[in-house]
Amino acid sequence: MVRVEPFEVEQWMDKYETTPGVLNIAETCAASISIDDLVALCEDPNIPHPLNTSTKLTYGPIRGSHALRDRLASLYSARAASPLPFENVLITPGAIAANFLLLYTLISPGDHVVCQHPTYQQLYDVPKSLGAEVSLWKLRKGKKYIPDLEDLKEMIQENTKMIIINNPNNPTGSTTPKSVLQGLVDLARAKDIIILSDEVYRPLFHGISPGDSEFPPSIVSLGYAKAISTGSMSKAYSLAGIRVGWIACRDRSIIEAIATARDYTTISVSRVDDQLASYALSTSVLHSLLGRNIKLAKTNIVLLEKFIDRWSDVCSWVKPTGGTTALVRFEKDGNAVDDVRFCLDVLETSKVMFLPASKCFGKQFKGSVRIGFVCETEVLEEALKQLGLYVRRNLL
Amino acid sequence: MVRVEPFEVEQWMDKYETTPGVLNIAETCAASISIDDLVALCEDPNIPHPLNTSTKLTYGPIRGSHALRDRLASLYSARAASPLPFENVLITPGAIAANFLLLYTLISPGDHVVCQHPTYQQLYDVPKSLGAEVSLWKLRKGKKYIPDLEDLKEMIQENTKMIIINNPNNPTGSTTPKSVLQGLVDLARAKDIIILSDEVYRPLFHGISPGDSEFPPSIVSLGYAKAISTGSMSKAYSLAGIRVGWIACRDRSIIEAIATARDYTTISVSRVDDQLASYALSTSVLHSLLGRNIKLAKTNIVLLEKFIDRWSDVCSWVKPTGGTTALVRFEKDGNAVDDVRFCLDVLETSKVMFLPASKCFGKQFKGSVRIGFVCETEVLEEALKQLGLYVRRNLL
Repeated sequence: MVRVEPFEVEQWMDKYETTPGVLNIAETCAASISIDDLVALCEDPNIPHPLNTSTKLTYGPIRGSHALRDRLASLYSARAASPLPFENVLITPGAIAANFLLLYTLISPGDHVVCQHPTYQQLYDVPKSLGAEVSLWKLRKGKKYIPDLEDLKEMIQENTKMIIINNPNNPTGSTTPKSVLQGLVDLARAKDIIILSDEVYRPLFHGISPGDSEFPPSIVSLGYAKAISTGSMSKAYSLAGIRVGWIACRDRSIIEAIATARDYTTISVSRVDDQLASYALSTSVLHSLLGRNIKLAKTNIVLLEKFIDRWSDVCSWVKPTGGTTALVRFEKDGNAVDDVRFCLDVLETSKVMFLPASKCFGKQFKGSVRIGFVCETEVLEEALKQLGLYVRRNLL
Repeated sequence: MVRVEPFEVEQWMDKYETTPGVLNIAETCAASISIDDLVALCEDPNIPHPLNTSTKLTYGPIRGSHALRDRLASLYSARAASPLPFENVLITPGAIAANFLLLYTLISPGDHVVCQHPTYQQLYDVPKSLGAEVSLWKLRKGKKYIPDLEDLKEMIQENTKMIIINNPNNPTGSTTPKSVLQGLVDLARAKDIIILSDEVYRPLFHGISPGDSEFPPSIVSLGYAKAISTGSMSKAYSLAGIRVGWIACRDRSIIEAIATARDYTTISVSRVDDQLASYALSTSVLHSLLGRNIKLAKTNIVLLEKFIDRWSDVCSWVKPTGGTTALVRFEKDGNAVDDVRFCLDVLETSKVMFLPASKCFGKQFKGSVRIGFVCETEVLEEALKQLGLYVRRNLL
């Protein structure tokens, strides 16, 4: 009856994140905030509270409020040659719905899709479930998990409809640099291939500065009309509990096609959530919210790096430059651990929760786990302390 | 590029509902309420406000909060032989997502689907977009838009996977009575066919009383495990602006299959919306909210009936018994009006907005319009006054 494979990451999270006393360092969101926290971040005391409880809860603007689409459009305009009109942004219930919806609209049986790997399972399994052939564009540890354009060239077929990337990448935390993005755009343009860049972790960069010549703009800012960006309030903006994501693209005909299909899946997003997202992205809140999260990421990655340096006999990684996750390999006696058993054993004995990469991202990641390190600093500190005790007892 | 037809109802609504000064009697929701209105309906002054602004906005419980699923399960248990466990309810962002998700999960290319017609376009066009053959089980005016089981028997094929109904029905406002539901279940059970009943207008019955032997229970209450009900907070509960819908089914394997696919489309619904829906369905609020809406429907349908009686030379209908909509036919000189031109002309000259049935539900409905009459009574009164002036000037 089911045509789709179990979504391993989501099922693992759902199964274990409610473990009593859990030290959750599996979560991919920058530590979540409440409405009260959001209001406390506002730099202008004259801005009214984001919740207007007297608003009639009708469906509201079907494609998302003008205010919200406008604020997002201006974010996509920042490093682009020309501004993105607000009509080129569609609001969806989370980035997961944005990705699903555009794949459902644009992918047909017989299409070929290239998808970066490892990445969020949705991005390659939904095209498959829609009847497409999917080739995995593999990120290699030896190349710091940065995608290789030479590999891509060999994968493109006559029927390649879409190339899918995730920048910054989950689970590796790698950033695809500007020059690689430009090369990708050149390749796609030559063959009229759509690019989907899942930018849900954007703009949470902590290992590359905006002044760096390789700092990546959004895929939408590189002058190729058929480049689509998706994003959400969940990860870099700490608001997963409001279900607001989006799709942005310079090609209005793609937006209209997706909007037509969107009528069958969505109607509108929550009016309450739209109000909260508009508030969070307003100039009085956005900078302090992002500032908080980038600072949190920079503080926490230092703690994680110290841990890995301390236990370098059994631990290794490629240090992330963006996003909220890191892929960390654990060994015992020079051999990769059985990461599923390792995760379950660590959870049981130390209450520390993270994800087994071989189960969630593919067998080639045996021995690695995904750690979400942009949680509350105290949670990470305690989790690393417990994990250190575990390592000392069991891996050395 | 697009595999789906434009969703005519949604596109018409989106295009015209923001007309300045519009008297909107096209809307299918019982007149929407605000959070303040919802709180004012609460019968117990000791219940805390539904919004807790200090809740961290994490994803929250993936399948919906325990409280919300519990309250829905108890609604489905009311007229059933045994209680429905809360695990048999899945929360989705609206009924539109509920319907989409279960069709995406359960329908494959080569399946045959029978769908009541007229109904919400999603229910027959999404199965088509997924590669199924769809047969329309037509409701006839002469049978008061009540589906005929003899017609259904002739439509069932060896590969019929699902039968879809909508009870109460949009756009006709007809109610499928208990005996017909029981006959449907008997037919489906004999051939192991899944039934999907879109019950988004349930329990807004205004023309049949709960004591009537033909009063319809939910399809889930009739003892057939493969019967699925979908619903939402939007229509009967006046809260379209929070995106909360659901799927209920006695067969846990169907629920689990849908939950597996749901991981690719949804993660969780808004935590804020879940809080509000749980509050609205609590015993202290539910009865006064439904009481308000059934009273509103009963008051307003009297006004609409008076209008149709007053202009019976050019107007006719089958009076609805449930839901929020009526199909009303307009004639001039004994001939059906061109309903698309009629709707546009009425909107332009009188600011009254409703939907052309030939465009939104099929050419056989030429001359008919769909009126949503469970709006604020003053809006309906003014709209009918203006429409009466229009009729006098243009149709007599």
